[in-house]
Amino acid sequence: MKPFKEMSREELLNEQSVLEAKFKEIKEKGLKLDMSRGKPSKDQLDLANGMMDVLSSTADMKCEAGVDCRNYGIMDGIPEARRLLADMSEVPEKNILIYGNSSLNVMFDTVARAMSMGVCGNTPWAQQGQIKFLCPVPGYDRHFGITQFFGIEMINVPLLPTGPDMDMVEELVSKDPQIKGIWCVPKYSNPTGVSYSDETVRRFAHLKPAAPDFRIFWDNAYSIHHLYDDDQDVILELLSECEKAGTEDMVYKFISTSKVSFPGSGIAAMAASEANLADARKAMFYQTIGHDKLNQLRHVRFFKDMDGVREHMRKHAEILRPKFEAVLEILDRELGGLEIGTWSRPKGGYFISFDSLEGCAKNIVAKAKEAGVVMTGAGATFPYGKDPEDRNIRIAPSFPTLDELKMAAEIFVMSVKLVSIEKLLAE
Amino acid sequence: MKPFKEMSREELLNEQSVLEAKFKEIKEKGLKLDMSRGKPSKDQLDLANGMMDVLSSTADMKCEAGVDCRNYGIMDGIPEARRLLADMSEVPEKNILIYGNSSLNVMFDTVARAMSMGVCGNTPWAQQGQIKFLCPVPGYDRHFGITQFFGIEMINVPLLPTGPDMDMVEELVSKDPQIKGIWCVPKYSNPTGVSYSDETVRRFAHLKPAAPDFRIFWDNAYSIHHLYDDDQDVILELLSECEKAGTEDMVYKFISTSKVSFPGSGIAAMAASEANLADARKAMFYQTIGHDKLNQLRHVRFFKDMDGVREHMRKHAEILRPKFEAVLEILDRELGGLEIGTWSRPKGGYFISFDSLEGCAKNIVAKAKEAGVVMTGAGATFPYGKDPEDRNIRIAPSFPTLDELKMAAEIFVMSVKLVSIEKLLAE
Repeated sequence: MKPFKEMSREELLNEQSVLEAKFKEIKEKGLKLDMSRGKPSKDQLDLANGMMDVLSSTADMKCEAGVDCRNYGIMDGIPEARRLLADMSEVPEKNILIYGNSSLNVMFDTVARAMSMGVCGNTPWAQQGQIKFLCPVPGYDRHFGITQFFGIEMINVPLLPTGPDMDMVEELVSKDPQIKGIWCVPKYSNPTGVSYSDETVRRFAHLKPAAPDFRIFWDNAYSIHHLYDDDQDVILELLSECEKAGTEDMVYKFISTSKVSFPGSGIAAMAASEANLADARKAMFYQTIGHDKLNQLRHVRFFKDMDGVREHMRKHAEILRPKFEAVLEILDRELGGLEIGTWSRPKGGYFISFDSLEGCAKNIVAKAKEAGVVMTGAGATFPYGKDPEDRNIRIAPSFPTLDELKMAAEIFVMSVKLVSIEKLLAE
Repeated sequence: MKPFKEMSREELLNEQSVLEAKFKEIKEKGLKLDMSRGKPSKDQLDLANGMMDVLSSTADMKCEAGVDCRNYGIMDGIPEARRLLADMSEVPEKNILIYGNSSLNVMFDTVARAMSMGVCGNTPWAQQGQIKFLCPVPGYDRHFGITQFFGIEMINVPLLPTGPDMDMVEELVSKDPQIKGIWCVPKYSNPTGVSYSDETVRRFAHLKPAAPDFRIFWDNAYSIHHLYDDDQDVILELLSECEKAGTEDMVYKFISTSKVSFPGSGIAAMAASEANLADARKAMFYQTIGHDKLNQLRHVRFFKDMDGVREHMRKHAEILRPKFEAVLEILDRELGGLEIGTWSRPKGGYFISFDSLEGCAKNIVAKAKEAGVVMTGAGATFPYGKDPEDRNIRIAPSFPTLDELKMAAEIFVMSVKLVSIEKLLAE
């Protein structure tokens, strides 16, 4: 089929009426399909069910340090869990602090602490007037939610195929001491799937921020979430690059096992310089007597080591890969050559990012909803929920079954076509 | 034996030399005993080991609401866990919000939120100048730690046998809008074991604070932690008393299963009015995608209901009771009539509170340490770690074995005698 914009008004009207008939039929099925959140599917959750067996009433519940994991103690996390999450974060064990059940919570707490207590002895952010964060876009809605909640002004930075526009980042950060942070998902980025280039990581390590309390929030949420065994993105490890550059205090790395074991019942960690961890511990001491060590133990006993984790992630990939490929196949088949959208082909992570014609995203999401398909709200991938061009839609293929997903993707492409035709007819 | 202060100098010197010889002997044993923290013993932890078996790789991991507890979702906590913790808190289910693994963390977050976001639409505490908290003393060191961390001024209020001195509380709270909260452990108080009288609870419910954003922090940590089956303290339920008085937004109740199931691997909750919970949810939405639902499910499957919890607490009591009685027996036998100290006889909770002669507590703790007995630091039970009379010592009998505990208690009473004699001789 030729590009829509090359079609005559008559051809478009014709295409529209065919699609509308088809769409009406589907609507009548009263489907309920969800492509909105990056939730693992039941099959994926089943992979970690064995974790429910590794601790039992007769199990030894002492950790390596000889401490009974059932009791209070060991604020930093048990040694074997620190080692596992250090390996997952590609940092030495001394640079790891284990937290609770989600890295989102660690990020929230880290911003909260900086707001009220300041970063490493600097004036609390809340007492420095209007502070700002850089937000590579499109990005993760829950990152933007945290900074919005604390009243931090968010500045959009384009996310290029190599990562954030580093010319812009360097320029802004070096000139404006009110800029205190940047949200990054460096690998298989949410939602674009972009992995930062070596040059980008090195330029991050060499940033010269005007603010002494500027921090890179490096959310390595998809560090081991590959779709392919033989075609994986590899990114430079930021903390060691920073050490080489003498900027190791500039970065907070976050990681969790939420999409490795169980969402909400995983373990999370922060990886950072010893100075940053000491700063974090100061608050942690008052905030908690310790995190859930039994769950830490459960994770280590189940995965054993990084090889165990990698093997486990291969099983996730086997379930996820056909889903991503099915959506891509439908996008290619139905939208290829129409010039009414572009989409990402990620090699890992949880999302496919779709860009529609300008001003169409909200309408496409609304259209799909008419036929029972729930997508992430258009705009959600931008600070304040405002996509300036109303183009980006995040597709989350993981949760539905393959059949449901195919159905949802067919409805999605129909919605894209219908909304695009409407736009073209109105021009 | 007659009171020390009625002894002649010679009698005291004689007693001192006998004690010193005995103390030297014990010191040479190189003991390592810990009466410092309210930690359950291994035997107590074993009681809940069955909780490690209720979820297995083949178990149904859906909650009542039909949601898979392994996945994201249900921020408020699964219905059955809300019901269990509502029962434990003696409030309706609608007044419960489940949090993570410890109530200390919930309290910290609640203060943190009030500081940065304000309480129910009021100006953030951090922007209201120097704010203050009332602190019934002696009290729980970690409460005082939270308020100190956030730079909140703490005002000591005497804890009477009926609860905090309510004349003083009413007077201060009604006059000073900078007073934003009060820390309470209403039942089997830490460390005194005091349970608030009905009149005290009613006076709390009828407080007329000058500050619209004043909150009672009601940490019901030992609500079901009785030592005796037939002699239990019962306190009025504050939230319903407040409802009667039209002050239901004035209270946050906190509870957890830390000393019911496993410390650090329990579940915690806040019980409060619907307005207060709505306010809490606003932050929670950004702070987490949800707490550990598998652990919630594990707790409900193991305890089943409040009857199950009560039955379980009876087993705890069977282990704790002999320990409390052993310490009390030694205190009575060795210090009775000497008039160098008074001590509490709690019917529940985790502590025995000891008051020495004025100016002796620090020295007694140091003395006991010489012989290998670790006690809670003297002063810890007061804001800023400053016991104005240097008298209060918190004894935590739960963790050591009965034999260790007896040994530790003997060393403690010897330390009390030695330090008291020293004081009397110096007068």
